[in-house]
Amino acid sequence: MKAEIISIGDELLVGQVVNTNASWLAAQLNQEGIEVVRIVAIRDDREDILKSLAEASTRADAILITGGLGPTRDDITKLTLCEYFGSELVFHQPSFDNVLRLFSSRGFRIGEENRRQAEIPDNCTPISNLNGTAPGMWFEKDGKIYVSMPGVPFEMKPMVTDLVLPELIIRRKGGYIVHKTVMTQGIGESFLAEIIKDWEENLPGQFKLAYLPQPGMVRLRLTGRGTDVKALTDELKRLSTELVTLIPDYVFGYDDEKPEEVIGKILREAGATLATAESCTGGYIAHLITSIPGSSAYFTGSVVAYSNLIKINILGVKEETLTAHGAVSSETVKEMAEGVRSRFGTDYAIAVSGIAGPDGGTKEKAIGTTWIALAGPNGTSTEKFIFGHNRERNIRLAALAALGKLRVMILSGRA
Amino acid sequence: MKAEIISIGDELLVGQVVNTNASWLAAQLNQEGIEVVRIVAIRDDREDILKSLAEASTRADAILITGGLGPTRDDITKLTLCEYFGSELVFHQPSFDNVLRLFSSRGFRIGEENRRQAEIPDNCTPISNLNGTAPGMWFEKDGKIYVSMPGVPFEMKPMVTDLVLPELIIRRKGGYIVHKTVMTQGIGESFLAEIIKDWEENLPGQFKLAYLPQPGMVRLRLTGRGTDVKALTDELKRLSTELVTLIPDYVFGYDDEKPEEVIGKILREAGATLATAESCTGGYIAHLITSIPGSSAYFTGSVVAYSNLIKINILGVKEETLTAHGAVSSETVKEMAEGVRSRFGTDYAIAVSGIAGPDGGTKEKAIGTTWIALAGPNGTSTEKFIFGHNRERNIRLAALAALGKLRVMILSGRA
Repeated sequence: MKAEIISIGDELLVGQVVNTNASWLAAQLNQEGIEVVRIVAIRDDREDILKSLAEASTRADAILITGGLGPTRDDITKLTLCEYFGSELVFHQPSFDNVLRLFSSRGFRIGEENRRQAEIPDNCTPISNLNGTAPGMWFEKDGKIYVSMPGVPFEMKPMVTDLVLPELIIRRKGGYIVHKTVMTQGIGESFLAEIIKDWEENLPGQFKLAYLPQPGMVRLRLTGRGTDVKALTDELKRLSTELVTLIPDYVFGYDDEKPEEVIGKILREAGATLATAESCTGGYIAHLITSIPGSSAYFTGSVVAYSNLIKINILGVKEETLTAHGAVSSETVKEMAEGVRSRFGTDYAIAVSGIAGPDGGTKEKAIGTTWIALAGPNGTSTEKFIFGHNRERNIRLAALAALGKLRVMILSGRA
Repeated sequence: MKAEIISIGDELLVGQVVNTNASWLAAQLNQEGIEVVRIVAIRDDREDILKSLAEASTRADAILITGGLGPTRDDITKLTLCEYFGSELVFHQPSFDNVLRLFSSRGFRIGEENRRQAEIPDNCTPISNLNGTAPGMWFEKDGKIYVSMPGVPFEMKPMVTDLVLPELIIRRKGGYIVHKTVMTQGIGESFLAEIIKDWEENLPGQFKLAYLPQPGMVRLRLTGRGTDVKALTDELKRLSTELVTLIPDYVFGYDDEKPEEVIGKILREAGATLATAESCTGGYIAHLITSIPGSSAYFTGSVVAYSNLIKINILGVKEETLTAHGAVSSETVKEMAEGVRSRFGTDYAIAVSGIAGPDGGTKEKAIGTTWIALAGPNGTSTEKFIFGHNRERNIRLAALAALGKLRVMILSGRA
């Protein structure tokens, strides 16, 4: 089965919005062995829509369309689909009930545009939209599948994972792709490549390794293709286990697991609690940790101590320490970590202080200089990192380094 | 002049790489009045490349191609371009000199692949690549322009800004596009549409409005097309001012300004300081604020009070308040805001407490229920919001609502 993705929206063609929908969709489809042969972004324009639908049908078996289904007048997709599929718009009560449900839960009142959103072409199968007012639409024509979905990622994604993808998998005939991603941290791409060189060169022909670096981590994606899904899956498991034994200290998880999920699991299993004291990371570590549902079981809270007075008054850092060593120092982060650990009564504490940039560097302490402390039942350790000049990246790298250090500390029993 | 962008590379179609090149290029072209009619991503495949070049030439005057020019074997773009334009590859000494320059500066040795990179089609104009080994190529055929460039953003971008775009501007005959985006918050797309209906219907023919909703905000993009850039710009200014006067309370900024930037400017101008006390947002508000360089001038810090004990011990929330009203209540957020404001000694304080989900809802307090308090020199106000069931989205919506309330409070002098 081959697929083509058509993204509709002027905002894509003026460069205001990056087409992350298309890459997300492409990743989902590929994971299920459905090859994406083309991604097309077009304007909210009747003729462009008609032409690209016709063109796509010559290349693909399934055509996935996103965008152009909102309540406002710039969205002409639905009318154009009616034209292409020879449909009439009919009022669809369940879709309208969905609009009513969403609006009453938010205390909004219904406008005429919202009633129009519950109108669907009479020859499509509607796809419920749990998170928005516009239903998705599944069409079939001349043996090809067309699925039209809203462009809002939050509405489109559950439609795909819950309904569209499972249905496409049922229709797909033969040919499998299997993937396993090994998530590593604390080592660069080229050093990884050196360590696993022999293993990589001896990979069976139907397997391929891709290095996917991101700030602070490298994902190693192992892909296998074939027709025997059982044999493929077994081989994939064997190969990924081999890979992990080559680089055990650097692997923190699998398949796009996030460091904050992993640390949550580790803390939960250890029955331990954590607090953070953040200067340059400004609450980002707390945000990562609390983005995981149920994190209140192991995370008590954080002090974002952006000013030195907060470091002193709330965390109990000694004024002499700040005067003698500065806010970005081993001594200060140590006192920050120990301060938040004792005040918040947790087993572990992370503290970070650094110069995130783009300003604030000095001759002695360059931009990117960051001290991280970990306090635990067996004492406190500190480490200095020197990141780069990009503020956003420095904040991210400091947070990942801190979570990585904590993971290794707890798992190695060094805590 | 109309343009089409063709991005070549398997990595785009498996969803491994988001096509940020295309949106960047589209933004550059639009800014110069060159309309982008389509963006296409295709595989590293001879036939796909040939077909999409031919199709693009029926729609566009300039076809910009990125990707597929690296030294490795999966890059077949150059050979396919030779086939399409009927060219022979010839060795190009200046391109080879560039390879030598780059390699000697990095201490690399030259491989056979690198010599091949200095071969170019005999009927193209080479475009120097200051940051990489593969030169760009400018072709003309049947009155159409084709430009092939490497896919590495760091190599492609200077080629476009320094050489390709200036040349295209010279060739362009008249025709400008102007844009202005009005950023709104606190009102849904369909309600906005109702308020500005008459204004929108009376827009001059060459102007168009697009609604670009995102969680917690709607961007209104006004686009004008014409040949007299001065008249267009003046009209755009007039129309966007008109628009803002229709919805003054909802507009927080322009042209993709972020709420955290806007609040930073407002606090800086007012010479005022801010602290936050965060429960369900878990440090996300502090993270947004501190992501802006120089935020230490107005932001002192935050207490992420995930556990009730922290609310009591660090923020001074009364135990009776928590017992009588619960953590998610007007009374608790009020005490949180006032507690952090007095302890951190700031002019303003934000406090948020809510049920972010997916668990934790009760009959009385559904998932998504969130209380926000603002404390300022003239007292404290609280407001209840009911968001949805998605944790990530609820955290984002709560943060945006809090920043929006603070903005309105300070600007209206109600503080």
